[in-house]
Amino acid sequence: MREGTEVLDLASFLEEERGRMDRALSRAVAQAAPALPHGLLSPIERGVLAGGKRLRPILCVSAYRASAGARGGGGAKAPEAMYDLAVALELIHAYSLMHDDLPCMDDAELRRGEPTVHVLCGERETMVAGAALIPVAALQAWRAAGDLGLDRKASEEAVRVLTRAAGGAGMVGGQALDLLGEGARLSRTELDELHRRKTGALLEGSLVLGAVAARADESIRKGLSTFGREIGLAFQITDDLLDATGDAATLGKNPSDELMRKSTYVSLLGVEGARDEAHARSRAATEALRVAGIRAPALEALAGFVVSRDR
Amino acid sequence: MREGTEVLDLASFLEEERGRMDRALSRAVAQAAPALPHGLLSPIERGVLAGGKRLRPILCVSAYRASAGARGGGGAKAPEAMYDLAVALELIHAYSLMHDDLPCMDDAELRRGEPTVHVLCGERETMVAGAALIPVAALQAWRAAGDLGLDRKASEEAVRVLTRAAGGAGMVGGQALDLLGEGARLSRTELDELHRRKTGALLEGSLVLGAVAARADESIRKGLSTFGREIGLAFQITDDLLDATGDAATLGKNPSDELMRKSTYVSLLGVEGARDEAHARSRAATEALRVAGIRAPALEALAGFVVSRDR
Repeated sequence: MREGTEVLDLASFLEEERGRMDRALSRAVAQAAPALPHGLLSPIERGVLAGGKRLRPILCVSAYRASAGARGGGGAKAPEAMYDLAVALELIHAYSLMHDDLPCMDDAELRRGEPTVHVLCGERETMVAGAALIPVAALQAWRAAGDLGLDRKASEEAVRVLTRAAGGAGMVGGQALDLLGEGARLSRTELDELHRRKTGALLEGSLVLGAVAARADESIRKGLSTFGREIGLAFQITDDLLDATGDAATLGKNPSDELMRKSTYVSLLGVEGARDEAHARSRAATEALRVAGIRAPALEALAGFVVSRDR
Repeated sequence: MREGTEVLDLASFLEEERGRMDRALSRAVAQAAPALPHGLLSPIERGVLAGGKRLRPILCVSAYRASAGARGGGGAKAPEAMYDLAVALELIHAYSLMHDDLPCMDDAELRRGEPTVHVLCGERETMVAGAALIPVAALQAWRAAGDLGLDRKASEEAVRVLTRAAGGAGMVGGQALDLLGEGARLSRTELDELHRRKTGALLEGSLVLGAVAARADESIRKGLSTFGREIGLAFQITDDLLDATGDAATLGKNPSDELMRKSTYVSLLGVEGARDEAHARSRAATEALRVAGIRAPALEALAGFVVSRDR
C-alpha cells in the first residue's frame, strides 16, 4: 500500500455493499408487500431476495459517491435513501431474469445454482409477479428520490432514467432483438446494438441514475455514462466467455446461447479475441473517468471486476 | 328532448370519443416507435391499435370534463393533451389483455372475434412487448401531464394513480388472485376483492386520473372514485353474465371462466341475481355522482352502457 493512495479492498467492498443492498431490497419488498396478494409475494421474494451480485445498484451508489466527490464532497457517504433509490434498478433486473428464465423464453431451470423462480412458484405466477415488479420499481424510485431530497427536475429525471433503461429503447428492446436474432448470424454492429440495449442500458442507466441523484454536472454525467456503456459491453463479452468456457456446474445456470447457435462475442471474435475486447472495453471505461476528471477507486475496481469475475 | 336538459346521444358520443382515442393511441405508438426494435412494434400495434371500446380513457376524459364542469367550467372541452394522458390507461389495459391471452395464462386464440396477438406475432414476442408497454405507458403519462400544464404535485399524482392502478394493489394483484382462485369456490367478499383489483382498479383509476388532471377538489374526486368502484363491479358482473349467456361466436372471445369452473357472479348469484346486482351497482354509481353534486350526463350514460352492452 502506497501512502496517499486510496486502496480499495474490492472483496470487502463488494460484500459490504451487497449486504446494504440486500437490506434495502428487503425494505423495498416489505414496503410493497401489504398491497400485494400473497400469491405474488412468494415469486417476488424468490426473484428479488434470493441472491445476486447486486452489481447495478452498487454501480449506482458508487457513481453517486464519485459525483459527490468530484464536487468536492471527498469520500462522501451515501445516505440510506440512496440505497433505496439504487435498488429500484435491481427490481427491474430481477423482473427481467424472472421473465427470461420462463419456459416460453429461455426455459432455464437453474440460476445461480438454484431452481429458477417459475420452477418453485409456477410459470403464470412468475410471469405476473415479474410484470408487477415494474410498477413496484417505479414507485420505489419515486419514494426514494423524495426521501433523498431531490427536487422536481431531478426526481423526474431519476424515474425517467430508470424507465427508459428498462423500456423499449433499453432492456426490453434488447430482449426483443435477442428473440429475433435467434439462429441468425449477427454482425458486430448488430450484436453491439443488441447488448447495448439488453444488458448495457440498465448498466449505463445505473451510472447515470447515480449522477442524477448527486446532481452531477454535465461533464461528470457524460463521463459516467460512457463508463457505463463500456463496462456494459465488457460485462456481456465476459458473460459470453463464461458461457463458452464454463458449464452448468460452474456457472450455476444453463448455457443456452451456444447451444441455440446464437451469435455471441465468442462465436464472432474467438475466445482470445473476445478476451482482448473485454479488457479493451474495461480500459476504455476507466479512461472515460480519467478524461472527465472523476476520481473513483470503487468504479475503477468494478471495471476490473466485470472482466475478471468467474461467474 | 326536453328543453333545458342536456341529452346525450350515447352511440354518437362513444363513436366520436373512440375515434379521438384511436388517434391519440396512434400518436402514442408513433412516439414510442423510434425507440422500439421492429420486432416489438408489430405486437404492440396489434395489441394497442386493433380495436377495443376504449372505455377506460373515455371514462377518464369524461371525469375530467365533469370535474371541470363542477368547478364552473360548464361543458368544458378537453384539450388534446388530456386524450394523450387518458390513453396511458389503454396502454396498460392492452398489455394486460396481451398477457392474459398467452398460452401459459388463459390460452385464448380469439379476442373481439380476431386472432389474439400471440397467435399472430408469437408467444415470446407478445410477452416481451406486453411488458414493454408498461414503461411506455408511464412515459406517455409523464409527457402528457406536462403538455397539459399540470404542476409537480398533480403530475406526480397522475403517474402514481396510473402505476398503482396497474400494480400489485390493483390490476396485476387481481390477476394473481385470479390465478390462485382457479377452481376454488370464492365467497362474495373474495370475488369482490379479486375483481375490485383485476378489473375495478384500472376503471376506478380512470375516473381518479381524470379528477387529478382537472385538479378536482376532494369531494368531487371522492364521488368520481366511488362511481368508478361501482361501475367496476357492474362491468365485471355484466362480463360474467355475457360469458354465461353468450358463446364464442357472439362474444368474439373464448368463454373460459365457466369452463374452468371458476367462481363468477353468475355461479354465485344466478343469472337473475347477477343481473339485479349489476343494475344495483350501476344505480349506486350514478347516486355517488348526485351525492357529490357532479352533473355529468356522459358518466350517467356510461353507467347505463356498462350494464346494457352486448359484448
